[in-house]
Amino acid sequence: MITDRQLNIVPFVSVDHMMKLVLSIGVETFLTELAGYIEEDFRRWEVFDKTPRVASHSRDGVIELMPTSDGILYGFKYVNGHPKNMKEGLQTVTAFGMLADVASGYPRLISEMTILTALRTAATSAVAAKYLAPEGSTSMAIIGNGAQAEFQALAFKAILGVDRLQLYDIDAAATAKCMRNLKGLGFSIKSCASPQEAVQGVAIITTATADKQYSTILTDNMVGSGVHINAVGGDCPGKTELHRDILMRSEIFVEYPPQTRIEGEIQQLPGDHPVTELWQVISGKLPGRNHAGQITLFDSVGFATEDFSALRYVHDKLKGAGFSEDLDLLADPDEPRDLFGMLLRAQTKGLAQPVI
Amino acid sequence: MITDRQLNIVPFVSVDHMMKLVLSIGVETFLTELAGYIEEDFRRWEVFDKTPRVASHSRDGVIELMPTSDGILYGFKYVNGHPKNMKEGLQTVTAFGMLADVASGYPRLISEMTILTALRTAATSAVAAKYLAPEGSTSMAIIGNGAQAEFQALAFKAILGVDRLQLYDIDAAATAKCMRNLKGLGFSIKSCASPQEAVQGVAIITTATADKQYSTILTDNMVGSGVHINAVGGDCPGKTELHRDILMRSEIFVEYPPQTRIEGEIQQLPGDHPVTELWQVISGKLPGRNHAGQITLFDSVGFATEDFSALRYVHDKLKGAGFSEDLDLLADPDEPRDLFGMLLRAQTKGLAQPVI
Repeated sequence: MITDRQLNIVPFVSVDHMMKLVLSIGVETFLTELAGYIEEDFRRWEVFDKTPRVASHSRDGVIELMPTSDGILYGFKYVNGHPKNMKEGLQTVTAFGMLADVASGYPRLISEMTILTALRTAATSAVAAKYLAPEGSTSMAIIGNGAQAEFQALAFKAILGVDRLQLYDIDAAATAKCMRNLKGLGFSIKSCASPQEAVQGVAIITTATADKQYSTILTDNMVGSGVHINAVGGDCPGKTELHRDILMRSEIFVEYPPQTRIEGEIQQLPGDHPVTELWQVISGKLPGRNHAGQITLFDSVGFATEDFSALRYVHDKLKGAGFSEDLDLLADPDEPRDLFGMLLRAQTKGLAQPVI
Repeated sequence: MITDRQLNIVPFVSVDHMMKLVLSIGVETFLTELAGYIEEDFRRWEVFDKTPRVASHSRDGVIELMPTSDGILYGFKYVNGHPKNMKEGLQTVTAFGMLADVASGYPRLISEMTILTALRTAATSAVAAKYLAPEGSTSMAIIGNGAQAEFQALAFKAILGVDRLQLYDIDAAATAKCMRNLKGLGFSIKSCASPQEAVQGVAIITTATADKQYSTILTDNMVGSGVHINAVGGDCPGKTELHRDILMRSEIFVEYPPQTRIEGEIQQLPGDHPVTELWQVISGKLPGRNHAGQITLFDSVGFATEDFSALRYVHDKLKGAGFSEDLDLLADPDEPRDLFGMLLRAQTKGLAQPVI
């Protein structure tokens, strides 16, 4: 079946290979390099074919497809979000994705993206904070210490130099897990008994909880002037983390307004509430933080270009490194129009059963 | 990595496995059983979450995502259409797809769909013709003898009993390939020098050409009363096969009007031109063919539910049959929130490099 050109083969990065790739590069280096790709793609934002993700909502969760293209490569991610999964021993979020050549439509890479999404979400947060957080921020609160927490911590360490963490989770076991995993990685960490305690004195507040409901992780009185809020967990309709009053006091930055207005914290605000697009700040078209007392808020919901950047980075890193396997994904008859002939001839290659 | 429950594993059907599965069942039996699934899903049309496919158009082709869900299972297909590929030794259409559990969002199957799409397109055509073609039709013209032609022929043989074919292609080599492949499979076949000759005296006319342009494969004077037209090739904006006058004389049946009005033959007509939805005929809500002299036209563009039916059928047939391999696609930490811990621990399982 496999010809010299191996037109049928698409490289596949399994979970095991992704872990090996990440570990061989080093988590912080991976996050830093990935952040570079994400930043580069935000800078050339205007070349991308953009659309809000295509969501299929059900009682217990959502399944989404997130496609985009820069005209040369096309990428999409399949991702679910099911908060109830955790209780059943399943991941809240699982994902996989692919890259294809726009010119031929042929897939070039298929990859697990559960781990990769965790990495790109954290790298995107850190890229935004690089432009929005107070100069020289080294302390961060993380409220919600689930699957995303350690990745956020390491991305902010690698890209901004954050080394002091204050952690809080409604479930103390999650905080303990997070502290255990981050031990020895260069942080001074405080476990906090309340969100109030966690946000005390920090420059950056990250919220990353998973409940699919309107919650109020942060109330207005908890947020002092000058902080940067990195709101990661409010990412689908009916799911927010911040009190509306905080939004009213903040300068709000978003990835792609048509999607964020549906899914982000700003779903609590009128559709014409002013927001700034992150790409405009990164490309220097608009200012980020204006003054020291300003509250900046990155209302992060995750956008298709970030997954595209992540797939592009992994694809570049794969070259010859042995971190993928070959998938026999594409039919490749000797003559392109002879798909049926290929099927017919397969019969003579070791199948006893009748064709028809 | 692999636990007892193997939560990380998703079965994958490669091209090679798909061919072996189809051959082990037999092509005609496969088409007949698949048509049963397609018909069943058209009958319960109203339960499906339906959306026009999400298309990314470029100079040379289109890349599409086609999602749908019946509330229990979610499915989507990735598919490209690049007519120029053929000249470069590539498939015009390649595809793959997946099924997932709506309740958890976890993938249950990933499959090649280049071969499967060819089969489901032909099976759908035959299902439509079962309700629309003249009673006792046994003859069919096939104009356009590319990758889809033999599948159409076998589906119409298996489901309607068509055994007399008249073939025409602008490239005689395509017709020769088609005749060679269908030899000995129970057809009497005539190779024709023109479309006019091909349509002479047949009950069903199938058009399946691949050019991405407005063509006129059939002109009005070529189509006599009482025939059924199975128009397969007009399937994206700017690509049609039939002269507008034929549409004006025909009773038109479509899969999903919001998609067909953009992509089908009826893109040549005003947006309010009356069409009948195929599911309404199949479920007995509306009549199909009214009288012997009527021209019926199935303006087929391919809809997500048909791919869903095909994936559902393959998934059912796989059970224990050994026609799939295991993909390590899903991260499965011992504790769902401990994604980072899984990565950390992978380091101790055979990787010498530093984590951070």
